Amino acid sequence: MPSQHHSSISPLSTFLIAVFFLLALFPATFVSIAWAPYRSVVNYAFPATQQRESVVCTSPNICVAAPIMSWFQKSLTLSSRSRGSYLITDEILSSLPEIKTYKTGLLNLFIQHTSCALSLNENYDSDVRADMSDALDRIVPEDKGSRKGLYRHDAEGSDDMPAHVKSALVGASVTIPITNGRLNTGTWQGIWYLEFRDSKHTRKVVATIQGEKI
Amino acid sequence: MPSQHHSSISPLSTFLIAVFFLLALFPATFVSIAWAPYRSVVNYAFPATQQRESVVCTSPNICVAAPIMSWFQKSLTLSSRSRGSYLITDEILSSLPEIKTYKTGLLNLFIQHTSCALSLNENYDSDVRADMSDALDRIVPEDKGSRKGLYRHDAEGSDDMPAHVKSALVGASVTIPITNGRLNTGTWQGIWYLEFRDSKHTRKVVATIQGEKI
Amino acid sequence: MPSQHHSSISPLSTFLIAVFFLLALFPATFVSIAWAPYRSVVNYAFPATQQRESVVCTSPNICVAAPIMSWFQKSLTLSSRSRGSYLITDEILSSLPEIKTYKTGLLNLFIQHTSCALSLNENYDSDVRADMSDALDRIVPEDKGSRKGLYRHDAEGSDDMPAHVKSALVGASVTIPITNGRLNTGTWQGIWYLEFRDSKHTRKVVATIQGEKI
Repeated sequence: MPSQHHSSISPLSTFLIAVFFLLALFPATFVSIAWAPYRSVVNYAFPATQQRESVVCTSPNICVAAPIMSWFQKSLTLSSRSRGSYLITDEILSSLPEIKTYKTGLLNLFIQHTSCALSLNENYDSDVRADMSDALDRIVPEDKGSRKGLYRHDAEGSDDMPAHVKSALVGASVTIPITNGRLNTGTWQGIWYLEFRDSKHTRKVVATIQGEKI
Repeated sequence: MPSQHHSSISPLSTFLIAVFFLLALFPATFVSIAWAPYRSVVNYAFPATQQRESVVCTSPNICVAAPIMSWFQKSLTLSSRSRGSYLITDEILSSLPEIKTYKTGLLNLFIQHTSCALSLNENYDSDVRADMSDALDRIVPEDKGSRKGLYRHDAEGSDDMPAHVKSALVGASVTIPITNGRLNTGTWQGIWYLEFRDSKHTRKVVATIQGEKI
Repeated sequence: MPSQHHSSISPLSTFLIAVFFLLALFPATFVSIAWAPYRSVVNYAFPATQQRESVVCTSPNICVAAPIMSWFQKSLTLSSRSRGSYLITDEILSSLPEIKTYKTGLLNLFIQHTSCALSLNENYDSDVRADMSDALDRIVPEDKGSRKGLYRHDAEGSDDMPAHVKSALVGASVTIPITNGRLNTGTWQGIWYLEFRDSKHTRKVVATIQGEKI
């Protein structure tokens, strides 16, 4: 009788072993089922931040919350403008409320054209913007009057090739640090869009935000 | 007899407790061993994407797949060229098939020299490239004839110092957004390499790709 | 007697089931408690790298160490300087020892002002820096003598508006690849700070490092 007791497995033990192996192989499933009835309570208690929390595990298998790295990309269309320098800080910020959700990061603005440019410059006096356009015209003059013969490429008019040169000098993109949900620009820095063609153009900008979420 | 039954632990229970603690302390090892015979089947069924899957865990301990952030860096050597502006979009794309594996990201190209530059400009008419070189020569003239005496630094010839100035104006690097495995440049935008020295030079570019994998 | 044996649960089994469910629901807590006495030994044996290790899980639930993506941001103040071009590579590197902890990444330096610039250029001959300042003065001349009337904006003197134009041409930021804990610049490349105002200014730079940790 005692020997039989030791050699046979009771139904309880059988059940226990079965459950045990099930759990060992699929622990996540079990935890998920066990917590299901309390899901709404949990979501209420830990509303939003929990959804963004990730995990970093250190040996031996102890996990803590980790910073979330995130990418965001959006195509913006600038309002149509003719030749000149324009301050577009507000236009950019209102199109990118997502900046507020980044603690540390970078914003890259990339204009998808070769006859205009993006830059950072003075954000207060509109004379600076008028002077900038004039100064660039002096540096890269058009093919007019006595200077005729400066450029081979004039398919779209005398403002065409100078626009390409100005675009190479000023550049098609700006990269701006993000700190605690704000662009970390200086007091006098604004985002400029420089249009180098005479006629109105509607330009597209690809905005790429990357960083650590708040 | 019943009291002895309750106080002694059967060999089965001993084994069970031992296995139990083993599993509790090293769950990953057990799962790994248990699935080992099926590894080839698993790899066949879920071939590549599974290898790239990471996990984001929300409270209480429920984990889901997370986007993979990834960095890739490669040193490229541009084919040897003398003074001029060159379209190198195809050369860059064929050297960086990795771009296709990024859903959202940025490509940074950085030229490791100070007498040449990288830029983005018109990708169709070769006249634009010839005009660009000429326009930059007018903006930053060489130290020749009646202009003699413009520069102190001429160790490597009259094309040396103007090359450094052009390099500062145009810039050593470009940053281009990646969207769904492609460079998100405009229709007319191409990657340009501008060589400012007369003689042939072999230039090195560090390409850095970062972003969220497909 | 045997039927009673099978229907009743022994105190041992009760304890076992209780512990079992506790462990199944809170495995991390248990592991944490179980390893607590050996924490100092573990920290001694695996000192620093373990703290930075994260995990990537592939199906079926097998986790391996993953690369750590990291962001670092710091505001630097450049030592006060008047008009000229300056090599600041050493000043930047000594302020950013964190670069050494990144295997693959990018350093973005962003100057928070609109009358100066950051650039990459020749790091050996100081003549190059003097020539650069002179060349930029020729490209963007001041409003003096016979040229009077070039600019509307002159609130802060004749060096004011040319400084804004030079800043747009050269640019407010540089992005430099990091490889194996070092800036991956070319042999002759150094980081330049170009001050375009006559009087001494103290400029602030936001340094953003991002990448995969060593």
